Amino acid sequence: MTRLVGIDLGGTSIRAALSTGPTSYAKRVVRRPTPASSGPAAVISACAEAARDVAGGTPDGIAIGIPGPLDPERGLVFAAPHLPGFENLPAREMLSEAAGCPVAIHNDSNLAGYGEWAAGMGRGARIFILVTMGTGIGGAVIIDGTLLVGSAGTAAEMGHVPWDLDGPLCGQGHPGCLEGIASGTGIARCAATALAAGEESSLGAITPLTTSAIADAARAGDPLAVRVFADAARVLGRSFGALVNILGPDAIALGGGVGGTCADLLLAPIRAGMAEIGFVAPLQHCRVGQAELGQDAGLVGAVAWVVRSFGRD
Amino acid sequence: MTRLVGIDLGGTSIRAALSTGPTSYAKRVVRRPTPASSGPAAVISACAEAARDVAGGTPDGIAIGIPGPLDPERGLVFAAPHLPGFENLPAREMLSEAAGCPVAIHNDSNLAGYGEWAAGMGRGARIFILVTMGTGIGGAVIIDGTLLVGSAGTAAEMGHVPWDLDGPLCGQGHPGCLEGIASGTGIARCAATALAAGEESSLGAITPLTTSAIADAARAGDPLAVRVFADAARVLGRSFGALVNILGPDAIALGGGVGGTCADLLLAPIRAGMAEIGFVAPLQHCRVGQAELGQDAGLVGAVAWVVRSFGRD
Repeated sequence: MTRLVGIDLGGTSIRAALSTGPTSYAKRVVRRPTPASSGPAAVISACAEAARDVAGGTPDGIAIGIPGPLDPERGLVFAAPHLPGFENLPAREMLSEAAGCPVAIHNDSNLAGYGEWAAGMGRGARIFILVTMGTGIGGAVIIDGTLLVGSAGTAAEMGHVPWDLDGPLCGQGHPGCLEGIASGTGIARCAATALAAGEESSLGAITPLTTSAIADAARAGDPLAVRVFADAARVLGRSFGALVNILGPDAIALGGGVGGTCADLLLAPIRAGMAEIGFVAPLQHCRVGQAELGQDAGLVGAVAWVVRSFGRD
Repeated sequence: MTRLVGIDLGGTSIRAALSTGPTSYAKRVVRRPTPASSGPAAVISACAEAARDVAGGTPDGIAIGIPGPLDPERGLVFAAPHLPGFENLPAREMLSEAAGCPVAIHNDSNLAGYGEWAAGMGRGARIFILVTMGTGIGGAVIIDGTLLVGSAGTAAEMGHVPWDLDGPLCGQGHPGCLEGIASGTGIARCAATALAAGEESSLGAITPLTTSAIADAARAGDPLAVRVFADAARVLGRSFGALVNILGPDAIALGGGVGGTCADLLLAPIRAGMAEIGFVAPLQHCRVGQAELGQDAGLVGAVAWVVRSFGRD
């Protein structure tokens, strides 16, 4: 029996699962802390051990999602913000040597998108987009079953698009960039700015001002909290409308730490924002909804990718 | 010998050419007026006659570019603003019956993009984008040699993306949509608005205020003309940056009636706008420049497409 392992590598934990089919894995998932501060060799070694553990020996193939921009064709990680030393790192080769088997690497958001396409909200879509809304905004684009990676391996940066010339900087320093207003960070900053300007709100009593606390306040009707979520959702929706006009997707899923938990606050104004700018025909062809696999999307995607890369058929 | 014909159907003229290779056509191009006011059957019949004329008999296959949104898979034209009666028209079937051969239909901008990819500025690009800037803004996306058409057949509407919440409406009524400021129409309207508000400019003496006259004034240093072109180019550049972040193209070509003739005014500020919002690595992998085939792009694309669709290889 072929032992194929999917790994979801995060800044704090490594999760590894043994494939039992194209998009399924065995119940026993190996979870280990990521020895991030010990450097890349230690992290790669821990991934290899997790893979051997879950496979009960040397695996026949591994696919791993890594949290940072990388080139899957060359197997090279450009950078990974939460993994010190992952800079121009030949991660595929290193893991292949450590684990004794062929390895495929991919960006973690891309594999989460692949998981949602293969077994989640995007099932059956010829053109599928995942937009993850958390600390930042990222995502994945899958066209006819192929992950779009682009000429530099870094495509599907859905958060880095214009929404207003006068908007605040995003985390990458882009002026008026979607991530600057519509990410969890952007929403919290907009609320903090309004509070600092003296706006009255139940949020004034909350420290720290997390996106989750703002979401709760919005559900309770706090006007400031309602507004910052509505503003974020409107511009997200307009960017979804642009994606519909450019790519004509069959489905767009909203995921990520904020997007995956605040769909009740976001989906209706996102649809309204889409209608501001999207053409009617492709809007009618595009489902929009919450991602279905939650925290497991990356692991499901890694398993689906390892089967695709190294499966026998 | 296989006689394959490419046709570029416009609102005022029909051009047909006989393929002599994958991206080349015979010197004799048949050009006829489009009998647009006589209705779809007359237009289709004129296309069939042009094809037979250029082929010297019944062709073995035709590919035709049609100026409007359509579904190439179903062979159905949804609408064509300059061709009355082209509404939900089964144009492929009609032309196939009239000409006595198999037919492929495509949107004209898409075939222009395919031409630029096959034989123009996009040669060799795995991911290529044409952005046409004329009365409106449109374009084409080609990924690994395949034209992206989207779930409704209408993808690559590159002009219908957000640039500012407070921007003017575009031709489709979208608020703050790129086409509203950066198309030829948008540029002329911005200049007219400033003149009406009393701004002094050499443009005040010009009637009608065409984009080409504004471009000439910008080249002569008129501050208002310089500014409206710079504003348009900046937001175009920011949208190009978004395309780079999302799709990771190898090349973006600027074409169309304005884009293809005003590259001297546009390309430098477009590159600056791209740098505002684009990630460094994919920007470095992306060539940006003027489209190379000018008015012939659509005909070259139709010839390339007919060879691809019906060629014997």
